[in-house]
Amino acid sequence: MSGRISKIPLRLRIRKHKRTPPGSSPGLIHPAEDAREPKLFITSYGNDHHLELPVHSLSDIHSRLAHYPNLSHWIEVRGFGNRNLLEQLCNDFDIHAMEMEDVVNTYQRPKMEEHSRHLFVVTRVISRCGDGLLKNDQLSLFVGNNVIISMQEHYDDYFEPVRSRLRGGKGLMRTYGVDYLAYSLLDAVVDTYFPLLEHIGDKLDELEDELFDKPNRISLQKIQVIKRELIILRRTVFAERDKINDLLRTVSVFMNDQTKLYLKDTYDHTIQVMDLVESYKEITASLMDIYLSSVSNRMNQIMKVLAVISTIFIPLTFIVGVYGMNFEDLKIDGVNYNMPELHSPYGYIGVVLFMVALVVVQLLVFWRKGWLDKS
Amino acid sequence: MSGRISKIPLRLRIRKHKRTPPGSSPGLIHPAEDAREPKLFITSYGNDHHLELPVHSLSDIHSRLAHYPNLSHWIEVRGFGNRNLLEQLCNDFDIHAMEMEDVVNTYQRPKMEEHSRHLFVVTRVISRCGDGLLKNDQLSLFVGNNVIISMQEHYDDYFEPVRSRLRGGKGLMRTYGVDYLAYSLLDAVVDTYFPLLEHIGDKLDELEDELFDKPNRISLQKIQVIKRELIILRRTVFAERDKINDLLRTVSVFMNDQTKLYLKDTYDHTIQVMDLVESYKEITASLMDIYLSSVSNRMNQIMKVLAVISTIFIPLTFIVGVYGMNFEDLKIDGVNYNMPELHSPYGYIGVVLFMVALVVVQLLVFWRKGWLDKS
Amino acid sequence: MSGRISKIPLRLRIRKHKRTPPGSSPGLIHPAEDAREPKLFITSYGNDHHLELPVHSLSDIHSRLAHYPNLSHWIEVRGFGNRNLLEQLCNDFDIHAMEMEDVVNTYQRPKMEEHSRHLFVVTRVISRCGDGLLKNDQLSLFVGNNVIISMQEHYDDYFEPVRSRLRGGKGLMRTYGVDYLAYSLLDAVVDTYFPLLEHIGDKLDELEDELFDKPNRISLQKIQVIKRELIILRRTVFAERDKINDLLRTVSVFMNDQTKLYLKDTYDHTIQVMDLVESYKEITASLMDIYLSSVSNRMNQIMKVLAVISTIFIPLTFIVGVYGMNFEDLKIDGVNYNMPELHSPYGYIGVVLFMVALVVVQLLVFWRKGWLDKS
Amino acid sequence: MSGRISKIPLRLRIRKHKRTPPGSSPGLIHPAEDAREPKLFITSYGNDHHLELPVHSLSDIHSRLAHYPNLSHWIEVRGFGNRNLLEQLCNDFDIHAMEMEDVVNTYQRPKMEEHSRHLFVVTRVISRCGDGLLKNDQLSLFVGNNVIISMQEHYDDYFEPVRSRLRGGKGLMRTYGVDYLAYSLLDAVVDTYFPLLEHIGDKLDELEDELFDKPNRISLQKIQVIKRELIILRRTVFAERDKINDLLRTVSVFMNDQTKLYLKDTYDHTIQVMDLVESYKEITASLMDIYLSSVSNRMNQIMKVLAVISTIFIPLTFIVGVYGMNFEDLKIDGVNYNMPELHSPYGYIGVVLFMVALVVVQLLVFWRKGWLDKS
Amino acid sequence: MSGRISKIPLRLRIRKHKRTPPGSSPGLIHPAEDAREPKLFITSYGNDHHLELPVHSLSDIHSRLAHYPNLSHWIEVRGFGNRNLLEQLCNDFDIHAMEMEDVVNTYQRPKMEEHSRHLFVVTRVISRCGDGLLKNDQLSLFVGNNVIISMQEHYDDYFEPVRSRLRGGKGLMRTYGVDYLAYSLLDAVVDTYFPLLEHIGDKLDELEDELFDKPNRISLQKIQVIKRELIILRRTVFAERDKINDLLRTVSVFMNDQTKLYLKDTYDHTIQVMDLVESYKEITASLMDIYLSSVSNRMNQIMKVLAVISTIFIPLTFIVGVYGMNFEDLKIDGVNYNMPELHSPYGYIGVVLFMVALVVVQLLVFWRKGWLDKS
Repeated sequence: MSGRISKIPLRLRIRKHKRTPPGSSPGLIHPAEDAREPKLFITSYGNDHHLELPVHSLSDIHSRLAHYPNLSHWIEVRGFGNRNLLEQLCNDFDIHAMEMEDVVNTYQRPKMEEHSRHLFVVTRVISRCGDGLLKNDQLSLFVGNNVIISMQEHYDDYFEPVRSRLRGGKGLMRTYGVDYLAYSLLDAVVDTYFPLLEHIGDKLDELEDELFDKPNRISLQKIQVIKRELIILRRTVFAERDKINDLLRTVSVFMNDQTKLYLKDTYDHTIQVMDLVESYKEITASLMDIYLSSVSNRMNQIMKVLAVISTIFIPLTFIVGVYGMNFEDLKIDGVNYNMPELHSPYGYIGVVLFMVALVVVQLLVFWRKGWLDKS
Repeated sequence: MSGRISKIPLRLRIRKHKRTPPGSSPGLIHPAEDAREPKLFITSYGNDHHLELPVHSLSDIHSRLAHYPNLSHWIEVRGFGNRNLLEQLCNDFDIHAMEMEDVVNTYQRPKMEEHSRHLFVVTRVISRCGDGLLKNDQLSLFVGNNVIISMQEHYDDYFEPVRSRLRGGKGLMRTYGVDYLAYSLLDAVVDTYFPLLEHIGDKLDELEDELFDKPNRISLQKIQVIKRELIILRRTVFAERDKINDLLRTVSVFMNDQTKLYLKDTYDHTIQVMDLVESYKEITASLMDIYLSSVSNRMNQIMKVLAVISTIFIPLTFIVGVYGMNFEDLKIDGVNYNMPELHSPYGYIGVVLFMVALVVVQLLVFWRKGWLDKS
Repeated sequence: MSGRISKIPLRLRIRKHKRTPPGSSPGLIHPAEDAREPKLFITSYGNDHHLELPVHSLSDIHSRLAHYPNLSHWIEVRGFGNRNLLEQLCNDFDIHAMEMEDVVNTYQRPKMEEHSRHLFVVTRVISRCGDGLLKNDQLSLFVGNNVIISMQEHYDDYFEPVRSRLRGGKGLMRTYGVDYLAYSLLDAVVDTYFPLLEHIGDKLDELEDELFDKPNRISLQKIQVIKRELIILRRTVFAERDKINDLLRTVSVFMNDQTKLYLKDTYDHTIQVMDLVESYKEITASLMDIYLSSVSNRMNQIMKVLAVISTIFIPLTFIVGVYGMNFEDLKIDGVNYNMPELHSPYGYIGVVLFMVALVVVQLLVFWRKGWLDKS
Repeated sequence: MSGRISKIPLRLRIRKHKRTPPGSSPGLIHPAEDAREPKLFITSYGNDHHLELPVHSLSDIHSRLAHYPNLSHWIEVRGFGNRNLLEQLCNDFDIHAMEMEDVVNTYQRPKMEEHSRHLFVVTRVISRCGDGLLKNDQLSLFVGNNVIISMQEHYDDYFEPVRSRLRGGKGLMRTYGVDYLAYSLLDAVVDTYFPLLEHIGDKLDELEDELFDKPNRISLQKIQVIKRELIILRRTVFAERDKINDLLRTVSVFMNDQTKLYLKDTYDHTIQVMDLVESYKEITASLMDIYLSSVSNRMNQIMKVLAVISTIFIPLTFIVGVYGMNFEDLKIDGVNYNMPELHSPYGYIGVVLFMVALVVVQLLVFWRKGWLDKS
Repeated sequence: MSGRISKIPLRLRIRKHKRTPPGSSPGLIHPAEDAREPKLFITSYGNDHHLELPVHSLSDIHSRLAHYPNLSHWIEVRGFGNRNLLEQLCNDFDIHAMEMEDVVNTYQRPKMEEHSRHLFVVTRVISRCGDGLLKNDQLSLFVGNNVIISMQEHYDDYFEPVRSRLRGGKGLMRTYGVDYLAYSLLDAVVDTYFPLLEHIGDKLDELEDELFDKPNRISLQKIQVIKRELIILRRTVFAERDKINDLLRTVSVFMNDQTKLYLKDTYDHTIQVMDLVESYKEITASLMDIYLSSVSNRMNQIMKVLAVISTIFIPLTFIVGVYGMNFEDLKIDGVNYNMPELHSPYGYIGVVLFMVALVVVQLLVFWRKGWLDKS
């Protein structure tokens, strides 16, 4: 009743990841029980080549790698539901068990680690689902000499634009090596933060209008949802920025200086995103202030109406109460001290006129006090 | 009705820039669809020369450069509506495609980048439009040996004072090289922040008066607008300061130590601006406190009036109600237990006097409680 | 009565540790008076060995160490109730008196200190007791060449998973030295923070629902409890992170580079924990906001009902009061100025209809003002 | 009326400095139009000398300098109303035009700059005027070999104590060089912050008493004034501290190590001032909390009185209303169902006793609820 | 009356120190006018010696020093009321006048300064007086080769435990030099912070109970007092920590590496104290929130009672008012339109039953709204 509101679908929960139990051995690869069967993709490309064929097993991939030793290869693994395959990957591409554990336990902070055979990069893809909730997926990259392996838990394809640039041969994609592809993927991830923030910015503008026009409990929940989204975004972008900075400062054969030039641009974007997130956090905080002040304001409105009505009618009711008293009509020496007004033919009219005058005076006072204003 | 207020024109929106879609190729120069046709200007100057002639094409500019190889040249491009021209510029002046992308996508953070052929400087010009809204434009500079190229999206001229100093040959403008001109432009940009802040400071003072005198919902919106403006200003000035610091620390043939001496002054100004912005943010926060306390205070006023009227008249109304009861005039053993006052000739006067005494006592109590004070 | 609520069992107190009195000599080992009799355990292990036998005295331990000089040994001391034993330990294993003082005074901050004969590591194990309170125990480790000594005040076993990995020979436990065991213990400790935080996260979600549905004073206490728990967690995790960072940067014979690789992972976990703690602190703060706004909202509801009832009935009561006045029925020139309505056969019906009309008008006004809405 | 209060004289405005228009040439010396005619002073001193003669022109100063080449000279310029004089000073003492610009534009942040011929130090003197407002003046120092030039806009003398120490030959003033005089001046400036802060501390204590005893709208304005003063003080002291730190770290022929020893003490004082400012800011914030809670508390008081009076009398008024109803005295089968109480000789007494009992019960309930307490 | 509360004795003032007037000469030793006559103590100790004899003059001290050149000497000066003695001390022990100024002006921040003849250490001793107020004394130490001079303003002895350890020869006190004594004194000072904080922690727990049970204005004052105490403690401990850190990093003949090992422990304690202070500050802030919400809650309670009573009785009073109207009993065509109920024998009973039904319905509504709940 009183403060109860119906559940709204835009409540955002902080997702609970399944974690390995405390004290368990490091480097054990435990895909979640409901993990999906892996889908494998390989895209091989070079200055004049672009092959994008379906593959069904790791052996298909190995034969492809053997066939085109001079091309760059982008191996994609989507779904972690096959532990054997994952262990085989570790074996074939010299991936440390602890790295694969980080890949499979998809709640890692964005980070970059250098290894002798590759760079290991963890990045987080945040997207908005159809129901308005934020989805926070993990993408892991192994950037080697001419092979890049990308691994993700879900089947969704976040990189169609990159893929189409590869296909069309647009830009430098085909000329440069896999480190440029890695840059393109990371850049695409960071670029997805902008529409998210624009969405939040729009919602903040709408909310501000709503709060000034017609604040209600749902507005409060919307503020909470945005606050939580910004908390998550900030946490992610902060780590993302550190990671890209690490990549910029690393001296590795797997990351060209040429590519770092482009990566610097991505770094600038993460700074821009962080600026926006911080600004939006401040705006969200001030929306909360507006909400609270609106609630106070409505109370003020109600109190004003109540006060005006009460202070006008309470004295009037007293007056008519007076003339409802039943004092006996007694005369002492011909003078009636008991309510002589009741026995005068102009008594009623006099009382009514007095009450009208009283109301007029009160209204004047209220008007001067500004109680009759709208706001 | 209740909390609804009419839209006010001073709402500040965070401007939405058109962004390139996520995942698109870097270094692609996409001027916005509604971009204006570029206007070209060239100003050539030296110790004894000052030529400010209109140009219509890049070839005019090249002929000018060839004609006066010993002069300094300031090439201005206003409007990005001609992609060919932009690409030709890249080609002729050795500008990297990614730099030109940053020029055209006018939502860059202020920054400074060193390149072999020039310094690339992005700066933001914030100005107040006629309708009171903030305009946040981007100015990009390429500072070369004896050529400086400035590029901006709109036709507005922010640099008339610099231009007139060049014309008049005042100061060191003509003697020093284009790096001094670059300093002059940056300094002019930072100097525009001061009138903006003074405007905000004036508005804060007005608002404080208003909040103490006659707070209303519009005041709240004004506070919000100032808050947002300060958020934007801080974000910009922070980056501006970092950029100028980068310029000060860079060791480049395009930036003389002599000019850095002047630039240090500009750096001091950015610090001053940041100090002011921080102070104004704190003052804005305390204005919000004043607003909220004013709302509470008004409520207090209203409650006090209601309480005084009610506590005076409610007991009185009870008393007159008592003597409105219709108990029958029965005598037992000659004694009338049922409301004998009604049958006394002094009953009415007695009741009235009692009520007057009651009111006097109540008023005394309220006066001691301070309920009859104004504030 | 009014604001009094019954004590709830989830109040969290900041535990008071017994401290040595100010000015007392450093390095004095004063076990608390209620300290428990020490229990000793020794686990000896190597590639092919795993011995986990009960021991009753230090001499048992020494004979074991002498017997298997090539194995790694994990000596556990639980309970500090025997000062002689502690001093003997200092003597036998070259532990400085000030270190042992830190072990016994179990309110140390997590820290790492290098000594010539071992690394001294203090860590804090936070766990939730059956009654929902947080327990904050201290675990001290001395990491030597092939001996690790762990000391704790209580008998609880926090390391069953590590122990079972040792027993089963799973992972690298048996192959690597005692520094790997130290890592495993520290990692197990940090891993226990995650279930704690998940518990807090669940409680925060529940609380948010509760606050939107049916906020009450108990919710406020729950918020306070979570706030205090997060304060404690943050303080601990912050120091824990610094400690692990110190371990990573130390160059010591007691800490292999190989083990540091794993420890880096633990470091990442502490960062993750800190991120979560910070996020939860922000969410807790916003729950407080929701609570306060809910309280205001309920007040608003109550005021609205009171205002509607009052503003409807106060004027009506005035009207019926008017017709309760006892003005005499006097005619002057055949005209009765004193309440002629009372003497008209349609007077009553007219008054009733007027009152009904008045109520309808008032309800319309309230409906437009939104006072009849639920929220 | 309602929230309106009369203007109070202690409102603090952030002073608006006249600034040079954006884009104007650097190094131009534009004294404000209302600048005062400069007054010149020269004090020449040495171990055995102290000459403090009035001077009327720069040539007087030059003749003095030529006359006593072995003495230290303190040249004071008060008032900037003579542009020729300022330019002559630049010329004669090798002062850069940009330095003189900073001297004349008296809104500089405290700073220290090294030049080949002198140290340029800007410091801010904050003092409280007679009307209680803060005055924030700029003092610029040029510290040369044996000449120190101090320049200020106003005629006020802030350094009488230093001057009298020079006169009396007390301390080390005469023995040491002009760098010690510079230290003495800076130290005197920093020392003026302490009485300012003590004044603020006293006002905070008074305000706290006032807020607990008799909070009103004027208290709120006083809090605002103190807040603004602290904002200004912090901004100034922060920069002052940085400046003195720069002086301590500079390696210059114009600043002896001996003098730096004393300057270290001044540095300690700026830290103390900053500590105090921060503490006072926190206390001011908590005074705001007390104010807001006092406003709520007063409202509570008023509501309690209203509630007690209303809940006592509203039921009573209902009861007497019941016996004011005019039901006809009809008997059915000898039983009167219509208000038989009215026809009983003890009806009135019974009703009165019932009402008294009701009031007693209500008062008991309120007493248990604590509504009858003072606070 | 309304908001007025009687003064409580636990108000904490920030103590006003007498300061030297601005601009006065540095290094002047001005003991306060009410300074006490100095008391002198000397304790001489070595491995086999411990002499603790009363002294009356500096010459006694010098003869003692001359007598036992191989012992360590602790000279204590309590009270600064004798300027000659202080100057003699400066002279005899090579103390700089500016150091002695800092000793006498007892409002110094904790600090450490290295000099050629000694280390100069200023520390602050905070203790709780009998009346519950914090006392904040200054202790200055000069740590020389085998002489340590401690100076304090008041006669109180804060170091009885250290003294008794010296007497008893417990620990390392006698073996180690005066730097170990300095460590012991500093450690004793830092240790006194813990009981202070435990006291505050206890008060916070009590306050939390009080705020949930029976919040009142005195609670608010108690929160303020704790807030101010924490502000002072933080300021002091922060500086104390920096000072000990300086001592740890100093390379001085007056501070052994051996002693630094112990001092590191003291450093850890200051960190612990700071952690606690920060936590307590956060808890204090949340207590303020609880207080404010309790005030709102009480208001809610009162409003609910008022609303229930009013909304029940206001309609009833209207109804009885209706039947108190005096419409004439007129029949038209045998039908009485004027209040026929009054003339029915069941009119009264019908009205009473209707009113009872109305009350029952209202109570049901309130019960569903939760207005009849306690909280």
